[in-house]
Amino acid sequence: MKIEGRATRSIWMEADGWSVGIIDQTLLPHRVARLRLATLDDAVRAIATMQTRGAPLIGAVAAYGLALALRADASDRGLGRAYDALLAARPTAINLKWALDRVAAAVRDAVPAERAAAAYRRAGEICDEDVAINAAIGRHGLDLIERLVAGKRPGEPVNILTHCNAGWLATVDLGTATAPIYMAHDRGIAVHVWVDETRPRNQGASLTAFELGQHGVPHTVIPDNTGGHLMQHGMVDFVIVGTDRVTARGDVCNKIGTYLKALAAHDNGVPFYVALPSPTLDFTVSDGLAEIPIEQRAAAEVTGVSGRTADGRIETVTIVPGGTPVANFGFDVTPARLVSGLITERGIIAADARALADAFPDHASRAVATERAAE
Amino acid sequence: MKIEGRATRSIWMEADGWSVGIIDQTLLPHRVARLRLATLDDAVRAIATMQTRGAPLIGAVAAYGLALALRADASDRGLGRAYDALLAARPTAINLKWALDRVAAAVRDAVPAERAAAAYRRAGEICDEDVAINAAIGRHGLDLIERLVAGKRPGEPVNILTHCNAGWLATVDLGTATAPIYMAHDRGIAVHVWVDETRPRNQGASLTAFELGQHGVPHTVIPDNTGGHLMQHGMVDFVIVGTDRVTARGDVCNKIGTYLKALAAHDNGVPFYVALPSPTLDFTVSDGLAEIPIEQRAAAEVTGVSGRTADGRIETVTIVPGGTPVANFGFDVTPARLVSGLITERGIIAADARALADAFPDHASRAVATERAAE
Repeated sequence: MKIEGRATRSIWMEADGWSVGIIDQTLLPHRVARLRLATLDDAVRAIATMQTRGAPLIGAVAAYGLALALRADASDRGLGRAYDALLAARPTAINLKWALDRVAAAVRDAVPAERAAAAYRRAGEICDEDVAINAAIGRHGLDLIERLVAGKRPGEPVNILTHCNAGWLATVDLGTATAPIYMAHDRGIAVHVWVDETRPRNQGASLTAFELGQHGVPHTVIPDNTGGHLMQHGMVDFVIVGTDRVTARGDVCNKIGTYLKALAAHDNGVPFYVALPSPTLDFTVSDGLAEIPIEQRAAAEVTGVSGRTADGRIETVTIVPGGTPVANFGFDVTPARLVSGLITERGIIAADARALADAFPDHASRAVATERAAE
Repeated sequence: MKIEGRATRSIWMEADGWSVGIIDQTLLPHRVARLRLATLDDAVRAIATMQTRGAPLIGAVAAYGLALALRADASDRGLGRAYDALLAARPTAINLKWALDRVAAAVRDAVPAERAAAAYRRAGEICDEDVAINAAIGRHGLDLIERLVAGKRPGEPVNILTHCNAGWLATVDLGTATAPIYMAHDRGIAVHVWVDETRPRNQGASLTAFELGQHGVPHTVIPDNTGGHLMQHGMVDFVIVGTDRVTARGDVCNKIGTYLKALAAHDNGVPFYVALPSPTLDFTVSDGLAEIPIEQRAAAEVTGVSGRTADGRIETVTIVPGGTPVANFGFDVTPARLVSGLITERGIIAADARALADAFPDHASRAVATERAAE
């Protein structure tokens, strides 16, 4: 994607050939600050303080973090210490552990002198794979958008609604839910994106609006309350969201509020699609509503809103009376019955158990093995 | 309701016997500042700058504004000038014109020396009528809450979700959607209110949370994205909202986002009720979706959020990248099929044309007369 007019990945090798660049996402959308990661500690800090975020991107940063650590200390002890430090930076991130395991496997049998180079190689592969997966998701989603173009007058845009940020900034490039949008735009298809602001953390208003704006994709930010009204009035052709977890029967766990948009799409005959790389499938879970525990996050995310003041400072203001109790559920589950389809790197799969098992037999058998191991 | 521990209406006569007190709602919930209105200009400013808000309360302030004006100049010319100035303060407020017409009718035939006293009398009646209507709504809604108590363990609260502010602060006392809640609480029924923050203007997070807190009603503020998840998990027993306009067939126009909550209530078998004083019925309109134009409001309400800084200042912060386009639709329409019932001062009426016409034959015939006059 483009940032400040230049094609950029969200993680890159610096010109020195060994240090790693990322964008400090804690300052977005108010400031574009690039960060250079030169040590294990830099990588740990970037993950722990959310300077970097999004499951695929965290995995990539962790992979390079291990490479940076091995550059300084390639001993078995150094490898173990770096692995533990990176894992502890965000203990619940499945993708982070997966990336660390892949790098560790690539270097463990190498002699120490060759370990750093092997780690860099594997980290680069992890990044390239993420881009390839997103590009495949993009191509399948693009087919859906192209079909909608047929119903439009020349130049009239396809109106797409999205929630939260399943974009470039959460991955290495293209994003998941945004991949079809960027591809359509780059091919000259007129698209316009309704961006849910996505309270409480406003990832839509800040991150999605930022990356669409940088890439030049027409978009409009709306309060989360607005999407239903737009759909009632034929102003949305297509909903596409990302997801944190999809169950064996196609229930979709995603950012809180996704379910409300799925209901509105269903009530108004608007297609509702979910974009996901297949590692997001979790065949150990079937009934998303009953089986997925929803974490409660910090009250401060609800009581306060961060933004920029008239004189350019970034400040947090409190929007409720002092002492007001708040609740902050991070995610909700959209039942499979409301999902038009799952856009994966293997094509568009129906949100039901049979279709998912047929398309991902490798995942299904892995889940059975996991469950047996847990018994 | 109670404010700072004392039973208070949202508009009152000051101890001097002629000036009028209100709360400056532009400073809520961060500061409770009482305003004394002593002149016509004070009343016009209070309405125009939204120091006072809510259809019934604006009507009451306008009625007293006319009394204050007649105190200074009771001539026909003075009456006409004051009427015009108050009407121009919020030209779209139907209730304001209705209140002005009622006061004007009460004073027009009086000799100038008696006009101010007659205006004060009529303004007082307008306030008392509003309270009586809300008390009747409260009693009918209370029946619904009492029925839900039967399904609860001792002490377990009835969980009620509301959107925006259809409360004490928008009326003279009790509110509309909040009247059943306050009455239940005052009778010792355990209630707990989920308060949608209600972006973009956050009337829930600021005003509803403020008034429930002042009166001691247990409540929790939630992002607008949250209600669907709560309903999926049995955490909401009852939804009650206010409305700006209800059509002849029971479609409900209310603050943007109401429709999404109605969909979630329907999907989860949660009762969804709308509280309204009968002047909110508009029998000149039937199909709310097709016939009610939805105003777009200022972009600044979406791009910025106001709140209090750590050092106690009230500041507005910008939450989107500079130059981001936003849309701000003020209201949406909830189709009658999603409404469990309309709680009015005449009882709970089904949201359909026949039931409404039967319950409000006076309104129905007035609508026919209006339509004929418009032909």
